[in-house]
Amino acid sequence: MNAPIAGSRRPAPEALASVLGELSSRFGERFVVNATIREQHGRGEGLADLAAPDAVVFPETSDEVATIVKACAAARVPVIPFGIGTSLEGHVAAIHGGVCVDLSRMAKVLEINADDLDCRVQAGVSREQLNAELKGTGLFFPIDPGANATIGGMAATRASGTNAVRYGTMRENVLGLTVVTADGRIITTGGRARKSAAGYDLTRLFVGSEGTLGVITEIRLKLYGVPEAISAAVAQFADLESAVRAVIVAMQMSIPVARIELLDALQMDACIRYSKLDGYEIKPTLFFEFHGTDAGVAEQAGLMQQIVADHGGGSFRWATATEERTRLWKARHNAYYAALALKPGCFGFSTDACVPISRLAQCVMETRADVESTGLTCPIVGHVGDGNFHLLVLFDPKDAAERARAEGLAERVSLRAIRLGGTCTGEHGVGVHKLGALVAEHGEAVDYLRAIKRAFDPLGIMNPGKTVPE
Amino acid sequence: MNAPIAGSRRPAPEALASVLGELSSRFGERFVVNATIREQHGRGEGLADLAAPDAVVFPETSDEVATIVKACAAARVPVIPFGIGTSLEGHVAAIHGGVCVDLSRMAKVLEINADDLDCRVQAGVSREQLNAELKGTGLFFPIDPGANATIGGMAATRASGTNAVRYGTMRENVLGLTVVTADGRIITTGGRARKSAAGYDLTRLFVGSEGTLGVITEIRLKLYGVPEAISAAVAQFADLESAVRAVIVAMQMSIPVARIELLDALQMDACIRYSKLDGYEIKPTLFFEFHGTDAGVAEQAGLMQQIVADHGGGSFRWATATEERTRLWKARHNAYYAALALKPGCFGFSTDACVPISRLAQCVMETRADVESTGLTCPIVGHVGDGNFHLLVLFDPKDAAERARAEGLAERVSLRAIRLGGTCTGEHGVGVHKLGALVAEHGEAVDYLRAIKRAFDPLGIMNPGKTVPE
Repeated sequence: MNAPIAGSRRPAPEALASVLGELSSRFGERFVVNATIREQHGRGEGLADLAAPDAVVFPETSDEVATIVKACAAARVPVIPFGIGTSLEGHVAAIHGGVCVDLSRMAKVLEINADDLDCRVQAGVSREQLNAELKGTGLFFPIDPGANATIGGMAATRASGTNAVRYGTMRENVLGLTVVTADGRIITTGGRARKSAAGYDLTRLFVGSEGTLGVITEIRLKLYGVPEAISAAVAQFADLESAVRAVIVAMQMSIPVARIELLDALQMDACIRYSKLDGYEIKPTLFFEFHGTDAGVAEQAGLMQQIVADHGGGSFRWATATEERTRLWKARHNAYYAALALKPGCFGFSTDACVPISRLAQCVMETRADVESTGLTCPIVGHVGDGNFHLLVLFDPKDAAERARAEGLAERVSLRAIRLGGTCTGEHGVGVHKLGALVAEHGEAVDYLRAIKRAFDPLGIMNPGKTVPE
Repeated sequence: MNAPIAGSRRPAPEALASVLGELSSRFGERFVVNATIREQHGRGEGLADLAAPDAVVFPETSDEVATIVKACAAARVPVIPFGIGTSLEGHVAAIHGGVCVDLSRMAKVLEINADDLDCRVQAGVSREQLNAELKGTGLFFPIDPGANATIGGMAATRASGTNAVRYGTMRENVLGLTVVTADGRIITTGGRARKSAAGYDLTRLFVGSEGTLGVITEIRLKLYGVPEAISAAVAQFADLESAVRAVIVAMQMSIPVARIELLDALQMDACIRYSKLDGYEIKPTLFFEFHGTDAGVAEQAGLMQQIVADHGGGSFRWATATEERTRLWKARHNAYYAALALKPGCFGFSTDACVPISRLAQCVMETRADVESTGLTCPIVGHVGDGNFHLLVLFDPKDAAERARAEGLAERVSLRAIRLGGTCTGEHGVGVHKLGALVAEHGEAVDYLRAIKRAFDPLGIMNPGKTVPE
């Protein structure tokens, strides 16, 4: 079923056969070549075309991962780490063939250190599983990219999501890693100290490396105390710029808002219809969430309400009851499906521009005009406290010209963000789609990305074709 | 005046002479070989022996830094970046000779973007200068390692200090860098977006690289709104463990304390005498600082007071008046001098262990017993919210055996921290003193530190002999 990939550098057939034979006898039923399983592993949730691996192996320990990598290294066969398949940028597509390392059987929470607000988990633990296992400890892990991704995948793509404005991204929340390197060694990076000045920051180098420098098998994470109080609020604005200006003021006042989400009028229209959000207008809208003590949350919300009023925002609606809050955030999480419902039969994918917040209104406005020139339907949601917004680009999958227009639009969004001092990807990663934009963003520094890749993976077997422009 | 350094690999004399001649004609009076100036640049504030560079050059632009590095690279002459000389780990000692690049003439604040809470500065800007230039903007830069270090030096050593518990370290607060690489190219890393998933994290790789991968010439930093209210408090405890337990509870409750500093009874004794802190007892003591709104600060302090009481802490003394607060923090900043005054004629240096907070009491207690076995006088201060503490090791510089005992003690502190799940350096860096401890801490991962060094500096000219064990 694999479409031929231009420039594919598949391994030599005899070498591949030899590795597959070796892994088959070593892993038995945990070595799979069934076409359906391989195809399930050959594409994430983004736009990337299907590129199934030659086999899928399900290791249960770091040692087993090391065994797989050593076998692949000896035969120059690509290794593609796989968490749960929610990647949006084609990270898991086996574009040069090879062996997929599915980490779903490494799903143990290994330590929870309540006194130190940290834990250690295997890479296949999902964020919802981790939070379920933290129930009763008074702690939680905040990073929430929407999808129920694995912690390993989130570390590998430097994921974040709606509450990064308060809690940071995986960059700030990974304390250390266990990694199987490209020659099959097992190393640990970082540690349990909250900070360290001991040498180059290997942890931060592997966070966001998308499986191209090694396979992350264990992750140490920061945890947080569950807030005493949580409340949500919604404010609607006459125009997008007023909404953004209100957020800038809140950031300058250091109001520790836990989430600030922007929905443009089109997305709000979609959400009102899809999630039955009665009583809201089709206007640019901010969703807020506040975490803290009872008094602290009331104060934050009060300050925010004043700021909203100062910017012409109306209808500051509170949602202190868990039920109402859940309804709001469910609507936000379902924004993608609400958007798809605007154009039944369409596919959708998400852009990921992130700009300095002062440029956000301009970036969104120019993008909106650009969208209109394409004739496509593209609502916008944004983690506006971070300057990160997603254009949900809808297109008819049967219309090749429309897909091309959609891809062209996405590329222009990346380049626009870079031109405005931002980045082509705030949280989805590079994968196969952003290699060109990365060169535009980093210029000559890309040579040093290549130098790192060569230093860590001299044979070029770790998730080849991703992350680093060749 | 240079003592011969064991294993020194000085550049070939003809090559060195040729580079010095080239730089002299290029930089004129900004090229200095005067012995006094060279010696001022050959040692920081730590224990490292003097190792003066062969020349000191004072560039004014990144291009000029590139010119220097290119000349040195062509002749295989070491390049040692220099900020203001407050390094504690021998980072600036020219142990293999070479050219010191003094960045003090690159001291411009280049941009302040109030809307985006960021700025861009040249490497030679000091943190006090930056905060002076931010006056009137409503913003400040919080990271405070005590010394008035340069931002370039702070980035290069991944510095932090008393308020890292609230605001993070340089790791979290650098958005991007301009770096002159080892072959004299000028690259930029990161950008103005608050987060990015665009490729390997070059910014975090250069932060903490101690001049061994390139010369940092410009830094983009996060800024913060000046809090509406600031207050301080002091609490004293019967024993160290109770003080530490109180801090753990505060961390678990996510009380956003801006500073929590521990002073042991000996350090408190020294501070009471040196800084005339009337009304305090000679007991383990916590200094707190709270930032926020008026109501928020009052709430934080109230919660903290309750926690202190729950842990048997007495005399929770408030200091809302700026004057009293300044007096307290001045006493904390002068802890080093207060300690020196305990043993007139002694030198002092600081260890830098950082452990998971649950291990802090054990680490401090074992260290205290170890100190007693040495007969040395060593008070303790700690950024206790981070698990980072400093033993101020006093010794008689005329007594070689005592110095050896002091150095042995320091090494054992590093190894103890590592054994307890921590790091040999929370914030001072590796330099020349922690190379052995780094191997104990990172194990096989050190090979990947070496791989990075080779990839970025194949000629080995960038601050050689530091940071990466050979």
